[in-house]
Amino acid sequence: MYNREVKLSGHIIDSLILPKALDRILDMGGDFKFMEFTVGKLKGDISHAKLLVEASNETLLGEILDELSEIGAVVVELKDVELLVSEKDKTLPADFYSTTHHPTEIHYNGKWITVEDIEMDCMIVVDKTAERALCRPIGQINKGDHIVVGRDGIKVMPPERPRGKQGVFEFMSSEASSEKPIESIIKKIASEIKEIKKRGGKIAVVSGPAVVHTGSGPILASMIKEGIVDIIFAGNALATHDIESALYGTSLGTCVKTGEAVRRGHRHHIYAINEINKAGSIKEAIDKGVLKKGIMYECIKNDVPYVLAGSIRDDGPLPDVITDVIEAQEEMRKYVQDVDMVIMISTMLHSIATGNLLPSHVKSICVDINPATVTKLSDRGSAQVVGIVTDVGTFLPMLYNELKTEQ
Amino acid sequence: MYNREVKLSGHIIDSLILPKALDRILDMGGDFKFMEFTVGKLKGDISHAKLLVEASNETLLGEILDELSEIGAVVVELKDVELLVSEKDKTLPADFYSTTHHPTEIHYNGKWITVEDIEMDCMIVVDKTAERALCRPIGQINKGDHIVVGRDGIKVMPPERPRGKQGVFEFMSSEASSEKPIESIIKKIASEIKEIKKRGGKIAVVSGPAVVHTGSGPILASMIKEGIVDIIFAGNALATHDIESALYGTSLGTCVKTGEAVRRGHRHHIYAINEINKAGSIKEAIDKGVLKKGIMYECIKNDVPYVLAGSIRDDGPLPDVITDVIEAQEEMRKYVQDVDMVIMISTMLHSIATGNLLPSHVKSICVDINPATVTKLSDRGSAQVVGIVTDVGTFLPMLYNELKTEQ
Amino acid sequence: MYNREVKLSGHIIDSLILPKALDRILDMGGDFKFMEFTVGKLKGDISHAKLLVEASNETLLGEILDELSEIGAVVVELKDVELLVSEKDKTLPADFYSTTHHPTEIHYNGKWITVEDIEMDCMIVVDKTAERALCRPIGQINKGDHIVVGRDGIKVMPPERPRGKQGVFEFMSSEASSEKPIESIIKKIASEIKEIKKRGGKIAVVSGPAVVHTGSGPILASMIKEGIVDIIFAGNALATHDIESALYGTSLGTCVKTGEAVRRGHRHHIYAINEINKAGSIKEAIDKGVLKKGIMYECIKNDVPYVLAGSIRDDGPLPDVITDVIEAQEEMRKYVQDVDMVIMISTMLHSIATGNLLPSHVKSICVDINPATVTKLSDRGSAQVVGIVTDVGTFLPMLYNELKTEQ
Amino acid sequence: MYNREVKLSGHIIDSLILPKALDRILDMGGDFKFMEFTVGKLKGDISHAKLLVEASNETLLGEILDELSEIGAVVVELKDVELLVSEKDKTLPADFYSTTHHPTEIHYNGKWITVEDIEMDCMIVVDKTAERALCRPIGQINKGDHIVVGRDGIKVMPPERPRGKQGVFEFMSSEASSEKPIESIIKKIASEIKEIKKRGGKIAVVSGPAVVHTGSGPILASMIKEGIVDIIFAGNALATHDIESALYGTSLGTCVKTGEAVRRGHRHHIYAINEINKAGSIKEAIDKGVLKKGIMYECIKNDVPYVLAGSIRDDGPLPDVITDVIEAQEEMRKYVQDVDMVIMISTMLHSIATGNLLPSHVKSICVDINPATVTKLSDRGSAQVVGIVTDVGTFLPMLYNELKTEQ
Repeated sequence: MYNREVKLSGHIIDSLILPKALDRILDMGGDFKFMEFTVGKLKGDISHAKLLVEASNETLLGEILDELSEIGAVVVELKDVELLVSEKDKTLPADFYSTTHHPTEIHYNGKWITVEDIEMDCMIVVDKTAERALCRPIGQINKGDHIVVGRDGIKVMPPERPRGKQGVFEFMSSEASSEKPIESIIKKIASEIKEIKKRGGKIAVVSGPAVVHTGSGPILASMIKEGIVDIIFAGNALATHDIESALYGTSLGTCVKTGEAVRRGHRHHIYAINEINKAGSIKEAIDKGVLKKGIMYECIKNDVPYVLAGSIRDDGPLPDVITDVIEAQEEMRKYVQDVDMVIMISTMLHSIATGNLLPSHVKSICVDINPATVTKLSDRGSAQVVGIVTDVGTFLPMLYNELKTEQ
Repeated sequence: MYNREVKLSGHIIDSLILPKALDRILDMGGDFKFMEFTVGKLKGDISHAKLLVEASNETLLGEILDELSEIGAVVVELKDVELLVSEKDKTLPADFYSTTHHPTEIHYNGKWITVEDIEMDCMIVVDKTAERALCRPIGQINKGDHIVVGRDGIKVMPPERPRGKQGVFEFMSSEASSEKPIESIIKKIASEIKEIKKRGGKIAVVSGPAVVHTGSGPILASMIKEGIVDIIFAGNALATHDIESALYGTSLGTCVKTGEAVRRGHRHHIYAINEINKAGSIKEAIDKGVLKKGIMYECIKNDVPYVLAGSIRDDGPLPDVITDVIEAQEEMRKYVQDVDMVIMISTMLHSIATGNLLPSHVKSICVDINPATVTKLSDRGSAQVVGIVTDVGTFLPMLYNELKTEQ
Repeated sequence: MYNREVKLSGHIIDSLILPKALDRILDMGGDFKFMEFTVGKLKGDISHAKLLVEASNETLLGEILDELSEIGAVVVELKDVELLVSEKDKTLPADFYSTTHHPTEIHYNGKWITVEDIEMDCMIVVDKTAERALCRPIGQINKGDHIVVGRDGIKVMPPERPRGKQGVFEFMSSEASSEKPIESIIKKIASEIKEIKKRGGKIAVVSGPAVVHTGSGPILASMIKEGIVDIIFAGNALATHDIESALYGTSLGTCVKTGEAVRRGHRHHIYAINEINKAGSIKEAIDKGVLKKGIMYECIKNDVPYVLAGSIRDDGPLPDVITDVIEAQEEMRKYVQDVDMVIMISTMLHSIATGNLLPSHVKSICVDINPATVTKLSDRGSAQVVGIVTDVGTFLPMLYNELKTEQ
Repeated sequence: MYNREVKLSGHIIDSLILPKALDRILDMGGDFKFMEFTVGKLKGDISHAKLLVEASNETLLGEILDELSEIGAVVVELKDVELLVSEKDKTLPADFYSTTHHPTEIHYNGKWITVEDIEMDCMIVVDKTAERALCRPIGQINKGDHIVVGRDGIKVMPPERPRGKQGVFEFMSSEASSEKPIESIIKKIASEIKEIKKRGGKIAVVSGPAVVHTGSGPILASMIKEGIVDIIFAGNALATHDIESALYGTSLGTCVKTGEAVRRGHRHHIYAINEINKAGSIKEAIDKGVLKKGIMYECIKNDVPYVLAGSIRDDGPLPDVITDVIEAQEEMRKYVQDVDMVIMISTMLHSIATGNLLPSHVKSICVDINPATVTKLSDRGSAQVVGIVTDVGTFLPMLYNELKTEQ
């Protein structure tokens, strides 16, 4: 029998980490013995377990340890991470380690160092000189990079379910349902936002054009103006319809005030793009007095950065849109690590894109009228995202109202 | 060639009645000649067309006339309706006429008489003594009833699309979409409601339990108390969760204020039923001081009638529930003909049930977060229903707010 | 400190029963000590834990024990159940015990007796003479019934997740998604069905009319004829459209072969009801040679029982429909306890109705194109139901094909 | 009064073109007189109408003519189109003409010339030397281009509804519903495909990764191999999961054969990208014997072109992906004008992108389990697309089966 000692500690009982670990060991055909087991009893107390994991062959033992590492188990007998060199740009050595979006440390040169810019489905590149560990997507791997392989010396710290206090992230089951008391959910989100802002935290909004179509554009613009929103991730459609709505009062040709279709209104978004193209950029259109209100206007007036990522369905696009999607991802990466909360509104595309880049500690809310959007987000790994199935056209006004009245 | 003259009049051009008629004649293999054609040009003007419809045999001619009658064409050479006698309860003679939900008249004893209580998929029973025409479902046909058969002497008056003024029923396409400016839609509905109330009209609400689950129960209760709602159609679930929420603050065991699951809360709806059963009825529970607020409370306190129809999934049910569905339908029939507007909220079952009973002139709104509910309602014949895809938890508070502030 | 010893045994580690128990104790403000703890290591081995549960007052201790009892914990120091008498029909004494749908035993007169006909949200009535415990809904409680109250002497046995073999009920997460390999899911269901039939088990189908609308009626009819389906739960709509389709080739007026709308076809379902009303019942229509094929035909020809429950949206209804929903529930109760598997197809109403009556050991599949149907079923307590988001029009043909070819 | 004569001809009665024209004139406050009106009576006959359109001022008359031109009315007194010059790249002169996706001609130098590469929301650029009219998106307008402005000399030919024969594009209402007989719909699509292939037509498939997730990848691969599919539009996700599935048997880490989650399977798509990156491209991976089957394999082996457009959510991406979305659009434009039919499967993003580029004569089918996808496609102008609400995991196998067995 091959064996190895692993340690688990934290709220491993109630966060279900220990039972999951035991379950997987048995499921994979391994076995275990408890070496130590201390259960923390008070709220906040921590439990410890030391297990001897056993398997009939070395490969199986490796696979089991691999699984356990993902849920936070650490091999007791410490080894340094193993490194192999990439032989060609954008390629990886065999058995490379693929990251989770949880905080991760590697044991290198005898000490634990934190992996910077953690993000899921990436690789860990070690800068030997600086003794730094960097999380990098495959597209940024360069020939000669030292890449972590195997499973030794890696520590993953999955988030634990906090006991007691029920914030919006605790009380909502991940399963999205429209049959929830939406006003109280909005109240909780508002109070979470206020807490984040009070301590100087940052809030990102990822938004599809439905925010404008449903008439909530001015609300989002106010939230930017008032410093509630610190960064916008969106696409050409949001910006174009926001500008269309600022210039012509319509969105996709429908009057956003009355909801009535405007004659020839379906041409307005091309008019809007034409005006910005004439000016040179959104900023220049503002400087020239062409654009005087709206989401994009408030972003520029209040130095709130935005990333407009191109998509294959874009008309135009606006000059501010980054048409190369990999460049756009890089631009988004500049902001995600600093963000405390992300509110994703009515955009499966940009929500999944942002979800891919987010560390697991960032509180994320996905608001969509379609429950499938939330399900898909979870299927793609962003299980920490709280899904709210509601109408964005009513969600934003009510959230904003709550943010104002409760202060 | 067999032929027959038919007349069409009204806004037959812009309501597309004339082109549809011509189209169907050709499609079915018939032919036509224009005998007269006057186009109304001013807003409100009426057009007239007299057509000679031709077909190669009598059956085909009959079928074509049959089709045309449904869209409002009237055979010029007037004949009385043909009547046949039902030979057994709940059965019909061959070739019986099946009603639409549009206003309908029959030519009987040389004059046009209105069919009373018009409703789709029913039969016309003629009371020869009183010279009255009554719309009856198959389940209410008695042996010996005189039933309209064939297609002579029947005039159907489908609604025309009014020109000019855009109420909510005109500007919304029937196709339900969540990407509409919801606040302006709510404003239009509010103004429609206020107009109806001003002229003494009646408003029915058909509601599923989601109104309570999403926390909007108190809003609906206020709308009843303030005389906005004149009749409630619902099921055991709405009433039970309303009472659960009044007695224990929960709905399906979830606190409607905080959205948090309450320990053992899933038993509360049985507690609620138990309390009403002890008292004897909802009214007695109010009289005894057990039930002190909520939707059902306001109905009883304000003499707003309600029909609670049983369903196969009911727990309990409450003593006020009519467990026989055919009896419940009869009870609903007492109210639908007098209603000016119906607001259907989050219940496919009761919405389709109500839609089946409604004359086409009743303005109907179906609010649901699921676009499929609205599509199904249309598939089942209630094409006049305006579908609004939004969250009921936010719809009712915003509608109520609009009703209060705009007065 | 108040305390009580409880025992947990079974696959309490990997079915997450033990950690959930510890978690709830701490969450509710109680405390625990491990008295014994044996972990089963081999597949199939059983773990045992004996805990001393502590709380600062007796009420809290009671509440904690209450929670624990639901997940299968049994108080070590055995007491008999406490009984109180109902003082009025359909009413319950305070603190009555509300059942889960898991197998349940009560300790009465010094021994464990099984609660018969277990069903969720019901009460346990003890027949003192016969020493039997019967599960009864509130509507069937009679004055004088002895009803279990409190929490002593009750043992609930929640199902455990089996290790190893992955049947369809194990490998599918409860979260419904349309992005799953549907052919392999159908294969697994087919093999599960064949296994059940081989050992003489019974399969119920709960079906909405979409089975007929989508053209799969003949498939379901074949499954009945060939003895695969043992009982049908449905409503008037399924039966009416099935008969419409047998008599006129249409469903809701659309030709089920070509998908084209048939002229005047929307009257066919009334014709169908008329024909059955003339004959007197579905059986008589078959005896008279009027009805010659279809789902209802095969039910009657093959002595497969059916329960047609009335609903408020019914046209007609057919004479075989039980229009009183409480009577219809009672009729369904006659069958559910004997069933091994339930396949729910495209009907939220009848699926929830059936889910309410099912013991948790019955394997249940809910097939619907709308993910919300499955979510709602879970929200209402039927968490054991496996949801499959697919098109019923393609599901049944593929399932049937699989059932035939793999034999 | 200002007036102008316009002509309408074709199936203007039954395609509702004439009544719509009259309706809009009145709605906008104009008036009309019939100068000529000949109704075609036999199937295939054509109707002609000459109308004098009147308005109280010139602007209004212009607006009315503008509206009429979109539905196919042609001003009788012919003028040449008016041209203005673009003063800066990507910008347009005031009052530029924005195209529909219907066949369009312009009157230039005294004769009608066809606008090449017609596509919605674009501009008409006139090459004066070559006397050619080219449809160009705003992003491709160069300084100095001669651009059509105003409304003179433009003829739009919207498609007419063919009478009689009911192909899949005629019998299906645009409203997407899951309650349709899916097998007969699939049969009709199959026969449409066979007809197109028989006459040498081209079929494009636009597909999301759900085709692979649901296990239908091998079916699509066969359709490519057998020459049924002539061009593939997709994104990185489809290609990556197709290759993942070819190399490791999984899609998003789920085994496509058994539907079971594979340990560490969520890393497989990175492995797949790594393998292609190592080889250099998909083609090189095939040449080196790394990739041996699947959708992309068959594309390359059978010279079926593909356009893989980048998106902001891409992992990797594969070297074959065009990461600049505007370049990717250009690549798609090379193929769309030649295509006879487009089948869009489970991808809102790429479906809308393709819909934007398609001329209205291309038969388009959008298959999605979510009815909202189809609704959104229509909202964005692609009203000619037939929506089929079904499960792609069952749709493709049944379609392929139909294509094979009916030959």
